[in-house]
Amino acid sequence: MLDINFNFAQKAIESFILDYVKKNGFNRVVLGLSGGLDSAIVLKLCSNALGNENVFALMLPYKVSDKKNIEDAKNLCSLLKIKNELIEITPMIDSYFNIKPAVNKMQLGNKCARERMSILYDYSEREKAIVVGTSNKSELLIGYSTIYGDSASAFMPIGDLYKTQIFEFARFLDIPKEIVEKKPSADLWKGQNDEEEIGLSYKELDEILYQGVDLLMPQEDLCLKYGEEKVKRIFGMIRKSQFKRTMPSICKLLNRTIGIDFRYPRDWQG
Amino acid sequence: MLDINFNFAQKAIESFILDYVKKNGFNRVVLGLSGGLDSAIVLKLCSNALGNENVFALMLPYKVSDKKNIEDAKNLCSLLKIKNELIEITPMIDSYFNIKPAVNKMQLGNKCARERMSILYDYSEREKAIVVGTSNKSELLIGYSTIYGDSASAFMPIGDLYKTQIFEFARFLDIPKEIVEKKPSADLWKGQNDEEEIGLSYKELDEILYQGVDLLMPQEDLCLKYGEEKVKRIFGMIRKSQFKRTMPSICKLLNRTIGIDFRYPRDWQG
Repeated sequence: MLDINFNFAQKAIESFILDYVKKNGFNRVVLGLSGGLDSAIVLKLCSNALGNENVFALMLPYKVSDKKNIEDAKNLCSLLKIKNELIEITPMIDSYFNIKPAVNKMQLGNKCARERMSILYDYSEREKAIVVGTSNKSELLIGYSTIYGDSASAFMPIGDLYKTQIFEFARFLDIPKEIVEKKPSADLWKGQNDEEEIGLSYKELDEILYQGVDLLMPQEDLCLKYGEEKVKRIFGMIRKSQFKRTMPSICKLLNRTIGIDFRYPRDWQG
Repeated sequence: MLDINFNFAQKAIESFILDYVKKNGFNRVVLGLSGGLDSAIVLKLCSNALGNENVFALMLPYKVSDKKNIEDAKNLCSLLKIKNELIEITPMIDSYFNIKPAVNKMQLGNKCARERMSILYDYSEREKAIVVGTSNKSELLIGYSTIYGDSASAFMPIGDLYKTQIFEFARFLDIPKEIVEKKPSADLWKGQNDEEEIGLSYKELDEILYQGVDLLMPQEDLCLKYGEEKVKRIFGMIRKSQFKRTMPSICKLLNRTIGIDFRYPRDWQG
């Protein structure tokens, strides 16, 4: 049901990348490389589109990050000949939680995600490179991300692809099997696992999202097919995370208000 | 030219605040209080709308921040009986730049702005309070802000008011004169001054913005009135900062793409 033409997708994404980067006055991109699938694919597509010399990868582990992920990320950079750097975010994160101890592990994960964003944007300035995002459609729709953290970037080449499509796409793009075969994890704490945390396999989640969102299948039909509890829960997640997919709301007072009646695309040339 | 009815503006903003906070399932707000005018006004309006007990103010100075600003912020909290806390962001900022020294002071300012956002969102979780933004229309339009930093919040009560309107509004709202009379500054480094940095007085900037953006006066007419160099420079700033006022662009591949044909307001109830 989620089959796509990978040849077409590759061409479309690579020309999107090239076009977006140039239109914004850049030649280069910077991205955070976690050792996971999404950032690996975005790295490869950017390298194809812009040339490997125009891609800069940052590895930004926290002390609990899986060492295997860093190793896989480094190997991928060697394989694709991508300039890269590793910065431990532990000192910045710990100096905050030493002042104000975290009450739950979500707080720790969110702080790490936002620290990574902050460093990526600092490198955007250092390297004169635009920040490319690595979010996928599954996580964007259910809000499985940190607002102003991992979901913050200038553009998202794979933001319209579901995670299950990305698995297949990765094989098509010859991403090393160490990366393709590992269990999806945000790696914000030890043993974290996307599917356990979401409470659904990506296969089932993506089928429901695709039919509900892209094909606009009525919720009642989806409930009959997948069970009411699951479907209602997923639609609840979509609704509740809408704030992560929109700009802050502004109180309208004058003639043309940003986001209401002053609206232009991100790459508006005026 | 920029006269507004402050009675009406106050009522409109206070009901916007109350409505937005409740609709999103909160009772409380958290905001960063700098000692400057914008955050002081937002604090007062939130306190009126929600009750002083439902507002939480954070002061987040860096080592170079003006001590007078902190003092003014503290005094305002005492005056309005607002719960508040002060956290020095110096350890987090310096532990990063100790690893990677800053090349220019913009980098330092941006890192501070993003650290403040990150702490405000951490407090959103701790205090079960929604993050209220303090951006004004002048700075939003010309992009005089840090993306995913001070411009990142859930909603912006004064985001449709120009800075010169906010000065008058502040007097109407009885904001202490220490705050109203100080020179506007982002206070990201010593002696920073908005008007010097922008290269225009707020009075002139706001007149050009209001006529150009709100009244849609043709640029040629504005050039005759204010001079070509100024007007072109301002319109250039508006255009170049459009990326700060929009969500990241996504490469369209499927039927309904986030931000393209999957679009709902931030407070969408589904």
